[in-house]
Amino acid sequence: MSSSENKTGATPPTIGVFDSGFGGLTVLRALLARLPRARFAFLGDTARLPYGSKSRRTIARYAAQSAQFLVREQGAEFVVIACNTASALALDAIQDAVPVPVLGVIEPGAAAARAASVTGDVLVIATAATVESHAYATACRALGLRVLEKACPLLVPLVEEGWIDHPVTAEVIRIYLAELTAEAAAMGLNPDTLVLGCTHYPLLRSLFERAVPAGMRVIDSAESLAETAVRLFNGRAAPLAAGPAPAEPLLRFFATDSVEKFERLGSRFLDRPVGNVELVDLGG
Amino acid sequence: MSSSENKTGATPPTIGVFDSGFGGLTVLRALLARLPRARFAFLGDTARLPYGSKSRRTIARYAAQSAQFLVREQGAEFVVIACNTASALALDAIQDAVPVPVLGVIEPGAAAARAASVTGDVLVIATAATVESHAYATACRALGLRVLEKACPLLVPLVEEGWIDHPVTAEVIRIYLAELTAEAAAMGLNPDTLVLGCTHYPLLRSLFERAVPAGMRVIDSAESLAETAVRLFNGRAAPLAAGPAPAEPLLRFFATDSVEKFERLGSRFLDRPVGNVELVDLGG
Repeated sequence: MSSSENKTGATPPTIGVFDSGFGGLTVLRALLARLPRARFAFLGDTARLPYGSKSRRTIARYAAQSAQFLVREQGAEFVVIACNTASALALDAIQDAVPVPVLGVIEPGAAAARAASVTGDVLVIATAATVESHAYATACRALGLRVLEKACPLLVPLVEEGWIDHPVTAEVIRIYLAELTAEAAAMGLNPDTLVLGCTHYPLLRSLFERAVPAGMRVIDSAESLAETAVRLFNGRAAPLAAGPAPAEPLLRFFATDSVEKFERLGSRFLDRPVGNVELVDLGG
Repeated sequence: MSSSENKTGATPPTIGVFDSGFGGLTVLRALLARLPRARFAFLGDTARLPYGSKSRRTIARYAAQSAQFLVREQGAEFVVIACNTASALALDAIQDAVPVPVLGVIEPGAAAARAASVTGDVLVIATAATVESHAYATACRALGLRVLEKACPLLVPLVEEGWIDHPVTAEVIRIYLAELTAEAAAMGLNPDTLVLGCTHYPLLRSLFERAVPAGMRVIDSAESLAETAVRLFNGRAAPLAAGPAPAEPLLRFFATDSVEKFERLGSRFLDRPVGNVELVDLGG
């Protein structure tokens, strides 16, 4: 299929959305709800996931290649990095690699925490790689927040196993939150906000809301990213308000491996069927 | 360091042990107990794990490169593939890639199940990739066994989180085994043997032994592999019985990424400290 249709004035602009896997489909879901007239190209670099165990240099190379695919091959005029690890470790490298605006997930999450918190103390849970980068801590501190981060490595496998509303998952969340709040108390923090710093975690949002202490706000970084992207996008691209919305959203899905798993699990994240995932080879 | 010392008659022969990560250290632990005079080189291809989400062609290329490193750079005279995915999908390719004997983990596990089972019906649990390959089912059926396989994708993350003797892990095992035995009963099987078809699972052996139905045997594929390797090795290499055993085992560890995590978690698998992991670059 040619990408020339993306370059005519008659079609809406394309937003490229990138993740190392398919967790970023929660961001696409949030974007679709806000920009039903846009055209989206989603790439999951599934052959090379997880990024979390890899070096910064390798992650930057993979993410830059992925962004270039979305811009050069799919005509994306705006790229959303729906991957916490790539945002935390490689946002600059991606911005250098493509000539279009690139938005990562960390800053919008930190800004939403700043807006939500009264005490100024926030908790962030994420994958090990995101926590080790301290990208959320840096972004939160730049906004005057005090922050405690914790890696929760069991949550992604639990989501991928489909144990979304499962007593084992509820118990794992209870244990992680108990450890985190005890550590926060020992540090003299009084947190009132919890940031879900991984694009898999929105599927567990209701479990988190039942598990957090009374009054604690739960911030979904996927929602925060989508809100920020819509603001930036509407400021730069004109035609989304004009013309009729399509009956079906204009979506294309690409993966570098595991198309079958992508189609099977992706619908859970997107909350609608994910069909016709196209296999692409980015090398490496 | 030169590898020439491996080629003199004065030093014991080197056994190369390979895994995509460090789960294979359970195999090295079992080998060390049986061959305390051997010299071992262990390679974890941690930069490219997990192999489970990758295609057979890619796994074969990665595993062949890893085996070649052990033979060419470390002078290994025998290679043990302590990785179920690589054994299941790429044993032939690895054997073609190096001029020394190569032993995988599947056949020894199946042979141990054949020796243990009275009813002839066995259960195999493993990662999703190993189950999807049906390598255990093929090997077991070739020995006249009936077999039911099940993927247990939460167990590796639970081990890596350190929840080795944890109520959540016990509950996850209970759920998986209940699903597996119910399915076996529905198929008319009468299983009396459970094969732990992943090199992470030996760390959960005591939980499994408490969870299985009374009388069911638990087969550790790492132990089975080590026993077979020792038999084959003693048939081919002479000097292991001669000379004094070293005060400290002759071990070198190599990883393609994540040296810190390897050292931190590896000691749990090896049951002794893992220090001085050397970083190697295999390309790709």
